[in-house]
Amino acid sequence: MKIAVCQINPVIGDIQYNKKLILEGYSRAAASGADLAVFPEMALLGYPPLDLVEKREFREAVFSAIEAIAGLTGKTGLIFGAIAEEHDTIGTNLFNSGYLCFEGAVRFIQHKTLLPNYDVFDEMRYFESAVHNDIFEFKGEKLGISICEDIWNDKDYWKQRLYPVDPVERQIAQGAQIIINISASPYSYGKREEKRDMLSSISQKYQVPLVYVCHAGCQTDLIFDGGSFCFGNTGQLVKMGKLFQEDFFVFDTHEALPKKPITVERSFEEEVTDALVLGIRDYCVKTSFKSVLLGLSGGIDSAIVSVLAARAIGPENVYTVMLPSVYSSRGSIVDSEKLIANTGIQSLSVSIQPVFEKLLEVLTPYFGGKPADVTEENLQSRTRGLYLMALSNKHGHLLLTTGNKSEVATGYATLYGDMCGALAVIADVYKTDIYALAEYLNREGEVIPRSIITKPPSAELRYDQTDQDSLPPYDLLDRILKMYLEENMEVKEITSVVGEPETVKRILRLVDLNEFKRKQAAPALRVSYKAFGYGRRFPIVQRWSRE
Amino acid sequence: MKIAVCQINPVIGDIQYNKKLILEGYSRAAASGADLAVFPEMALLGYPPLDLVEKREFREAVFSAIEAIAGLTGKTGLIFGAIAEEHDTIGTNLFNSGYLCFEGAVRFIQHKTLLPNYDVFDEMRYFESAVHNDIFEFKGEKLGISICEDIWNDKDYWKQRLYPVDPVERQIAQGAQIIINISASPYSYGKREEKRDMLSSISQKYQVPLVYVCHAGCQTDLIFDGGSFCFGNTGQLVKMGKLFQEDFFVFDTHEALPKKPITVERSFEEEVTDALVLGIRDYCVKTSFKSVLLGLSGGIDSAIVSVLAARAIGPENVYTVMLPSVYSSRGSIVDSEKLIANTGIQSLSVSIQPVFEKLLEVLTPYFGGKPADVTEENLQSRTRGLYLMALSNKHGHLLLTTGNKSEVATGYATLYGDMCGALAVIADVYKTDIYALAEYLNREGEVIPRSIITKPPSAELRYDQTDQDSLPPYDLLDRILKMYLEENMEVKEITSVVGEPETVKRILRLVDLNEFKRKQAAPALRVSYKAFGYGRRFPIVQRWSRE
Repeated sequence: MKIAVCQINPVIGDIQYNKKLILEGYSRAAASGADLAVFPEMALLGYPPLDLVEKREFREAVFSAIEAIAGLTGKTGLIFGAIAEEHDTIGTNLFNSGYLCFEGAVRFIQHKTLLPNYDVFDEMRYFESAVHNDIFEFKGEKLGISICEDIWNDKDYWKQRLYPVDPVERQIAQGAQIIINISASPYSYGKREEKRDMLSSISQKYQVPLVYVCHAGCQTDLIFDGGSFCFGNTGQLVKMGKLFQEDFFVFDTHEALPKKPITVERSFEEEVTDALVLGIRDYCVKTSFKSVLLGLSGGIDSAIVSVLAARAIGPENVYTVMLPSVYSSRGSIVDSEKLIANTGIQSLSVSIQPVFEKLLEVLTPYFGGKPADVTEENLQSRTRGLYLMALSNKHGHLLLTTGNKSEVATGYATLYGDMCGALAVIADVYKTDIYALAEYLNREGEVIPRSIITKPPSAELRYDQTDQDSLPPYDLLDRILKMYLEENMEVKEITSVVGEPETVKRILRLVDLNEFKRKQAAPALRVSYKAFGYGRRFPIVQRWSRE
Repeated sequence: MKIAVCQINPVIGDIQYNKKLILEGYSRAAASGADLAVFPEMALLGYPPLDLVEKREFREAVFSAIEAIAGLTGKTGLIFGAIAEEHDTIGTNLFNSGYLCFEGAVRFIQHKTLLPNYDVFDEMRYFESAVHNDIFEFKGEKLGISICEDIWNDKDYWKQRLYPVDPVERQIAQGAQIIINISASPYSYGKREEKRDMLSSISQKYQVPLVYVCHAGCQTDLIFDGGSFCFGNTGQLVKMGKLFQEDFFVFDTHEALPKKPITVERSFEEEVTDALVLGIRDYCVKTSFKSVLLGLSGGIDSAIVSVLAARAIGPENVYTVMLPSVYSSRGSIVDSEKLIANTGIQSLSVSIQPVFEKLLEVLTPYFGGKPADVTEENLQSRTRGLYLMALSNKHGHLLLTTGNKSEVATGYATLYGDMCGALAVIADVYKTDIYALAEYLNREGEVIPRSIITKPPSAELRYDQTDQDSLPPYDLLDRILKMYLEENMEVKEITSVVGEPETVKRILRLVDLNEFKRKQAAPALRVSYKAFGYGRRFPIVQRWSRE
C-alpha cells in the first residue's frame, strides 16, 4: 500500500487553516497515486487544544469541518486526528480520535485508548478512553489505527508500564497488517532515538509495516520535531520525515530498504539549535509578529538568543538594545558591538544610568537608611525591562527573554526585570550547554565573539560582580540541577553522587523558593525531558524541608 | 460512636508540622473520650502536594511519619489522609489513601477510587485508583471510609456522572453503618450548599450517619473553607465545623438534632470577605511574611484590598503607597487619605512624575516620532510597579496586586506594572461584585469612602480617562464574562442572552488574546467555580476565530 505521510504544522484552534492544510495534503497524496494520506493526531485542532475542547461551539466547528473534509474525499483514503463525541450519562463523552474517510464520508473512527496524563499531558482531563480497538480493511489491507500514546505500552519493551492494556496488541490479534500511529509527541532531546527503538521493536515483533506520523512546528512552548517514521515489516527504518519542518512523502509498504541507513541521531547542539529556531519562528508566525526585540548585555545568553532569532526571522528583524549602566564593563560594550557586526542584527544603545539615578534619588529617602542590597540591583534590571517593554510597545516587536535554565532554576533573575518578555528562548538550556551551543554556532567561523565565551559570567549589577559570587561553579550547579529536576533525585541521592551536602541543600532550597518567580515567567521553549512550566507542577507555598 | 472531627490547616510539604497537628488533635480527641479522631484527605502532606509526591525522599519522609503517628495511637481510632504505595509493573504505584490506626499500628488503608482530573485537579497525574472498596469494623461499627471525590458520584443525585463506579454504594452493600468521607475540596461560592444537599441525600438514602471532614486554610491560591458536616442517619445536618478557620468538635452518631437548624447559606459578600481574608493571612503565615504592601490609587479595587489585608494581618502591617502622577485627580488623593484615616493602615506618597518624565526624556528619541499611545500609559504603570517592588525588596513586605477579574479577563492591566506582586487578592472577583463587597464592608459605618464607590472607575493614565472608554459598561461586561468563563458559552450562546454580537465577539477575543498576560500573573485567590490560573488551561498561541 502506498501511504502519503503528511507531516504538517497546524495552528491550535484555527480550524479553517488546519482544514486547508489537510485538504491540500490530501489532494497532493491523491495526485501522487497514494492509496492513503495520513495526518497526525489532532491535525484539525492543533495540539494541545487544552480547554478549548470544552466549548460547545468550538466542538461544533470541528465536527462541521470533519464533515466538509470527508465530503471531499475520493478513492484515496484519508486519516487524520480530531475529536469525537459519544453520548451517555457517564464521563466527558469526548474522545481523541483518528478518522478514516474516503468516497465522501467518514468510514471509520478509532478513539484513543491510552490517555497520557503526566508531564505536559492532561488528556484525562478532557477525554474518555476507547473501550475497543478495531481494525479496518481498506483496499485489501487490514489497518490498525492507533493514536500516539496507544503505541507506548508494549509489555516487551517497557519494564514499568503505565496502563494495563495494549491497543496495538489487540489490533494485531484481530489481524492488523499495517500499523498506523498518528502522533503529537512533543520534542525533547534524545526522544527521537527512543521512539525509533521502540517503534522498530514493535514492527519487528509483529512483522508488520508501521507508519508513525508527527507534527512539525511549535505551539507556544511545545516543539514538535517532525521526523515521521516508516518501518518495513521487520522493523527496518525505511523513511523518515524532515526534522523541525513540514514534510510530505509517499511510503510504499513494500518498499526496499534505502541504500544508506537512515541516521536518526544528531548532536545535542544541532538539535537544540534547530528546535529553538523553530520555536522563535513559529511564535512569531502564529501570533503575526514580524520582529523581535531583546536586550544585549554583552554576555553569552543574549548573544545566543540574538543569533538564534536572526536565523529564525532574519537579522533585519531582530532588534537589540544595549542598556549600559556605570557597572557595565567596557568589554561588554565592545563584545556586543562585535556580535552586532558579525550577525547584521539591528542595534541601539540606551543608557539606563539617568533613569536609575533618578530612581535612587526619589526612592532612597524611603529606604529607611538601610544599606544597598539586592533592591538596587533589581532596580537596574527593572529599568532595563521597562525600557525594553516601552520599545516593544511602541514598535510592535515581540520581546524575548534570555535567561538560561540554571538561572531560572535558582531564581538568579529579576522578576519584572530581565524576566520581561513573551517568550523565554533558552530557559530550558543549562548554562554549561549554552557554552556548547556557542561553540556549535561558531563552528564555521566566529559569530559569537570569543571574548563573550571566555569571560566569567556576570550580571554586572555592581562592580566586579560575577555569577559565582552567589552560585557554585556552573558545572557543579548544572549537575545538581539535572539530577533534581530531571531525575527527581533529592538531597541524599544527589549527595551520594557529588558530595557537598550543604551546597546541594542550598541549591534545592533555592529552586523551591523561586517557584513564585517561575509562576510569572514567560513560557519557555521546551527541549529537555523536564522543562519548567506546564509540565512541572510544584506548589508555590510549601515547606518541604529535607531535615 | 463518638467521632472527633479535626478540621486542620496543614502546610503543603511540611510533614513535621502536619504530623504535630495530627498528634495534637488525636490527643485532644482521646482526652475528650472520642472513639475515633478523623482528619481530612492528605492531612499529612497538605493538599494539593502536586509533583512533590513524585520524589522518593519525600515519599519516604511521609511513610516514616505515618509509622511514627500510628505508633503513638491507643484505643482511640485515628483516620487521616496521606499517600500509599503498592508495587507492581503497571501504573504509578501510588495512591491517595485514608489510614485507620489504633493501638500502635496502621490497621486498615482505603485508597481513593475516583480521581478528580478537571479544573484545578490533576489526581490522575499521580495516583492509581483503588480496585476495591472495603469496610472495617471498629468498636462494633462497620465503617465505610472514602476519600473526597469518592462520594461525588451518586447515580441518584447526578444526572451526568464522571465515573462508572460508586465506592460508597459498594461499601453500603457490604454493610457499612457509618460513612466517613475525608476531603480536600477547594472553596468556591455556592459549593457548600451543594455539598450539604448531596451529602444529606446520601445519608438519607442509605439511612446512615455521615461524617465529612474538611481542611480549613489556604494553599497559595486554593481556599479551603472548613465547614465539616456531620449528618444523622436520615440526612439531617447535626453539626457543622467553623467556616474559614480550624475547628475541633465531637459528634455522636446517636446525637439528637440541634434545636436550631444549622444555616449553611451565607451572603456572597460575607463569604468572599472571609475567604479572601483567610487567603491573605495564610499566604503571609505560610511564607513567613509579616507585612504587605500595595499601591493605593484612589480607586475601589486597591481600597478593598487594603481593607481585606488590614483584617487579615492588622492595619499596622499593611503598607500602602500613593503613587500620583500629573494625571492623578485631586479626588483620588483625598479619597485615599480618607481611606487611610478610616482603616489605620500605613501610608506613604511618592510621586512617579520625576521618573516618568526622565523616562520620556530618555526614551522618546527612540520612539521614531510615533504619537503617544499605550506605551506612555504603560510606562506610568510600570514606574509604579518598579517603585513598589523596590519598597517590597528593601523592607521585606509582600506585594499584593489589586486587579479584579473583569480587568484580568480583558487584559485591562499592565504586565510588569499594576500586575506586579506575589498574590492577586481580588483577581477572581468581578468588578460589579467588588462594589457589592464595598457596600458590605461599609455596612456598620464608612470604611471605604463613599466617593470611591460612586466615582467612575479610571486608570488615570491620561487626562479624563475612564474604564468605559475602552470597555463596555461593567454590568454588561461582567454578564458576558461570566457566561464565557464560567459556563463555557460562546458567541452564539451569549448573544442569544445579551444581544450585541459585536461586543460579545470583541470581549471574547480580548479574553483570548490576553492569555499571555495571565500566564505571567500572580496566583489569584480562587472564590468562583472557574478562576483564572491553574484550573483554566488555555493555549497562549491559538487562533480560534469564531467566524
